[in-house]
Parts: sequence; C-alpha cells; structure tokens
Amino acid sequence: MRAVVITEPGGPEVLALRELPVPAPGTGELLVRVRASGVNRADLLQRAGRYPAPEGVPADVPGLEFAGEVAELGPGATAWRAGDRVMGIVAGGGYAEYLAVDATHVLPLPDSWSFQEGAAVPEAFLTAFDALLLQAGLANGERLLIHAVGSSVGVAALQLAKAVGATVAGTSRTRWKLERAQELGLDLALPVEDSFSPDHRIAGWADVILDLVGGGYVSGDLVASAPKGRIMLVGLTAGRTAKLDLSLLLAKRLRLWGTVLRSRSKEEKAALVRSFAEQVMPRFLSGEIRPVVDRVFPADAVAEAHRYLESNGNFGSVVLAWP
Amino acid sequence: MRAVVITEPGGPEVLALRELPVPAPGTGELLVRVRASGVNRADLLQRAGRYPAPEGVPADVPGLEFAGEVAELGPGATAWRAGDRVMGIVAGGGYAEYLAVDATHVLPLPDSWSFQEGAAVPEAFLTAFDALLLQAGLANGERLLIHAVGSSVGVAALQLAKAVGATVAGTSRTRWKLERAQELGLDLALPVEDSFSPDHRIAGWADVILDLVGGGYVSGDLVASAPKGRIMLVGLTAGRTAKLDLSLLLAKRLRLWGTVLRSRSKEEKAALVRSFAEQVMPRFLSGEIRPVVDRVFPADAVAEAHRYLESNGNFGSVVLAWP
Repeated sequence: MRAVVITEPGGPEVLALRELPVPAPGTGELLVRVRASGVNRADLLQRAGRYPAPEGVPADVPGLEFAGEVAELGPGATAWRAGDRVMGIVAGGGYAEYLAVDATHVLPLPDSWSFQEGAAVPEAFLTAFDALLLQAGLANGERLLIHAVGSSVGVAALQLAKAVGATVAGTSRTRWKLERAQELGLDLALPVEDSFSPDHRIAGWADVILDLVGGGYVSGDLVASAPKGRIMLVGLTAGRTAKLDLSLLLAKRLRLWGTVLRSRSKEEKAALVRSFAEQVMPRFLSGEIRPVVDRVFPADAVAEAHRYLESNGNFGSVVLAWP
Repeated sequence: MRAVVITEPGGPEVLALRELPVPAPGTGELLVRVRASGVNRADLLQRAGRYPAPEGVPADVPGLEFAGEVAELGPGATAWRAGDRVMGIVAGGGYAEYLAVDATHVLPLPDSWSFQEGAAVPEAFLTAFDALLLQAGLANGERLLIHAVGSSVGVAALQLAKAVGATVAGTSRTRWKLERAQELGLDLALPVEDSFSPDHRIAGWADVILDLVGGGYVSGDLVASAPKGRIMLVGLTAGRTAKLDLSLLLAKRLRLWGTVLRSRSKEEKAALVRSFAEQVMPRFLSGEIRPVVDRVFPADAVAEAHRYLESNGNFGSVVLAWP
C-alpha cells in the first residue's frame, strides 16, 4: 500500500509517498481501505519532530482521522461488515491506504457523504464535542468564546454550540473567516491582531472558552471569563508558555482544563466515540450540523497540504484523497 | 459592642478596638454573641487594603469565622434557639462581639469543644472540604499534595484526606511543622526553600494538589501532577503571577481550578454548610478529625495575632478570644 512517510523531522518537504506492507488487523480491529485522510495541526507538529506518536502506533506515518471502507475484520470485530463505509480516529498512521483500527473507534459514514466529508469529521468534531459538551458541560443559553473559530475544530465547535442553544463569540485574524463563521451562526465576530486582548464586549462574558491557540491568549481568557467560567485549552499554536494572573482564577473561580484526545486509553476513546454516535450523529443525519471541507489535496500533494494548513489559509478541514 | 476596626489600610498597627452598635438580625438571620473569632490570611489582606469586603458586609471589620452563642433570632430563623452554641462563616465582620449571620451558614458547636476550638474550624475545614471532596472529588487510594500543610487549611485538608483514605504529601518551609503534620498522618514530608521544585519523589505523583501558596509554586504543580490531575488553587501567599508551561496542562490533561468561599452567593454557602454538616461533622463527633488551635490571642491583642500569622509561626489556626 502507499503511505505518507516522515523521512526525517523537518518541513513539508520531508514527507514522501512510500510503499509499506498492508497491516494485519488484530483482535477487535478492522482493516480499513482509506479513501480520505484528515490533515490536522498535530500532523505538522509530528512531522517537525515535536509530537511523537504514542507507543504502539507507526512512528513515521502521520494522520489522526480517516474515512473509507471496511476491507477485512480482525478476530472478534463483529459489529462491522466488509464494505461498510466508516470514518474514525487513530493515534497515528492515518495517511495510508490501509489502516488497522480498533472497531470501537469507528463511526458509520452517512450514506449521503463523500469520503472526503467523512475525513473532515472525526478529529475535529470529537475534540469539540468532548471538550464542550462532555467536559465543560456547555448548556442552552450559555455563552461560548471560540478562539481560531475558522479552524477545523473551531468550525465544529461553533456548529455544536449553536445546536445546543449557546450564544457564540469567535476570534480570528482573518476577516473573511469571521464572515464565513457568521454564516454558520457565529453571534459575535472578534477580529484579533497579534494576540487576544478582551475589549468591553467580551470581558467577563464567557461561560465557556474553547482555546485552540494557547500562548498569550490564555491570559486574555482569564479576563474574558464570566464567574465560574470553564476554559478548555485544546491547542497551542501561539506557544506553550503563558504568564497568568492567578488572582483572576481565584476571584472568578475559574477552571482551566487542558485536554487532548491522542494520548487517551483505548477504552476512553471507545466511550467517547459511543457518546458521539448517540448524541452527535443524529444531528449530522438531520442536517443540523455538517462537515466543512475547505480543500482536498491528492495524497501525492501532501507537502502542499501541509504548507497550506501551516499558512492558515483554511476555513474548516483540509483533507487528503487516496484515489 | 466591641469590634476590631481597620482604621486605615496598613500594617497590624491600624487595627483598633472600637465600640460599634450591636447589629439587628434580619430575616433568616441569627444574632450571635461571638466568643472567639478565627484569624485568617484573608484578614491580613483586607487590613492591607488588598481584599475589600463584598457588598453588604462591614467594610472595616475583618473576620470570616466565629464561634459563640445564639443571642436572638431574626424573623424566620426557626432552626435555632437562643443559647445554642454555634460556629459559622461570614463574608466579613467576624472580629466583633456580636454578629448578624445567616442561619443557614451556621453549624452546631459540639458540646465537648471550647469556643476557641469552634472558631478554628469553619473557614479552614469548609475550604478544604469544598476544594478536595466536593470539587476535586478526592477518593480513597488517591494521592494528594498539600502546599503549606502547616497552615490552618493545610491541617484541615490533611485530616480530611486521611479520613477518606488518600495518601498525602505536604510541603512546608519549616521542618517542625512537617513533623507535626506527620503526627496527623502526613505520608510524605517535603521541605521546601524558596519555591517548589518537584524532585523524583513527587514528579507525576499527585492526583490532586491543594495549593495554598500560588505564585511560582503553580508551575511546579504542573510537574507534580499525575495524568488527569486536579490542581485546586486556594491561596496566593507567594504571589499572583505564574509563568506556566501549558504543554504540560494539555499532555497530562490537567485541571487547574481557582476557588474561594467569600464571594459565593448565600445559597451556595448554605448548600456547602449543609453538605459539611452531613459529611464532616460526624467525623468531628467521632474524634476522627479535630480542630487544631495553634494560639489564642485576647481580642485586644489583635495586632499581635496578625503579626504572628504574618510571620508564619503557626501550625493550625490562630484565634481571637472575646472574654
């Protein structure tokens, strides 16, 4: 099979298509013929050598989400059949034509969706669903601030939050992305320049913050939070260091949570996928929320896809297609 | 009545005993004849002008906890009788011979306790109980790290944690306080100098951290936390600013929570006092946990009491007595 390999840590040019053996599905696993692979910021970090794959996962093939067809069932993987259209998450190895994946980390791909749409969903929507609904408990009538609202996770979070009846503010450095987000229901568009400095509209406003940016944004989050606000820190594209005024954390009784999917146990991921199937998939099927594919690159243009994501050109998801 | 008044923001010398009118208990309130008042770090901050009382609370009389006798019932305060021995919390005004206090913020003083013991309990034990058990959900078999384990809240937290079956590590800059804490069950004594630098014994160790110090300690907390650790930030004696490595927060999926009692609504405080009455008071009555009074000062030596607490000489609570 063909797979995208990180030949050495570095820029997009270190990615190369190589022939690798098709993996054999283990107990409880499916072999999936991948038709499309989502491209995420974590893949850029892994390529650069700054986000190594966990143990038991291919170290040199990036990729955390996919859509395709079940090609073969491993022992005990009874819930699926060969030919089923699926999408799902892996802790690595997603940029490949075949994947051996835990059968409990897979969701059915809706009939009306393309594989490319399917590859735009799992990582972004599972991350947003888990952070906002399962962890922060975002509720009807609450106020949510999303940083980098045009990112794949931002767009997923915006749709999920509107679906549960939250009021949503969002930041972006790019005006047209805020306009696109407004078409998806964004209530308050906040253009930012270098960092996030809450003005009077947003200071003390947010019951929940989904921060995909980190760095200096986090000190602004403490100002933007309402009393008892929950700040979900999911990404660090602006840097890993923050100088915080802890007195705001105390006085407003704030909760700052770091969260990540990749390092979770198999059982935790299975539980999350199950909750998602129950609570989110019906909203996809009804059309209330939908995948947002920004651009599709053929797999052999993976370096270009990485450059594009690195340049922040996207609104929604970037996808690799395996023809 | 006599009360301790902050005559102007400043050092301990600005505290003076003054005659003030006895307050009238409002609806749902008790008038309490105070026999002992707890002295807390928050009182030092308020005296220095750095922690103003919330609205509706005497601005110039410090004091957050007390023990005494019910002198009079306000309209609708039916759960108590004149003469009942009680202890409780207020948002200010506790350094006075009489207090009008919400009847739902009061607990019965056990028969065998002195008023001075009673005044050592509410703020410290409610804070520790709320942070560790209600919020962090500290469970049997988990590992807790307490900073400033010799402080009044630290000593309360240590006892509560041992009572629920946790393993407890504690830091102090003072060796004899660690020895005293070991007599109360401390499992791992960690002497610290200027700040908290986790060594191999404590790195990645703590399921829950109760941080009464703040400042530079918090970056050490991120290192000391186990995956999915909960860090409860309750005090800032080491300063309000921290430079944090957010990547630890993400990779370990940590939760950093600020918490404070004083600013909570009347209803939130009543709910907390009710849970405390159910879950903690039986442990006091059985002798499993107990008030730890370090030193009692007569009310007219309040300046000396403040100097003493500021010097960190105490292990457990400092109390003012109203003879």
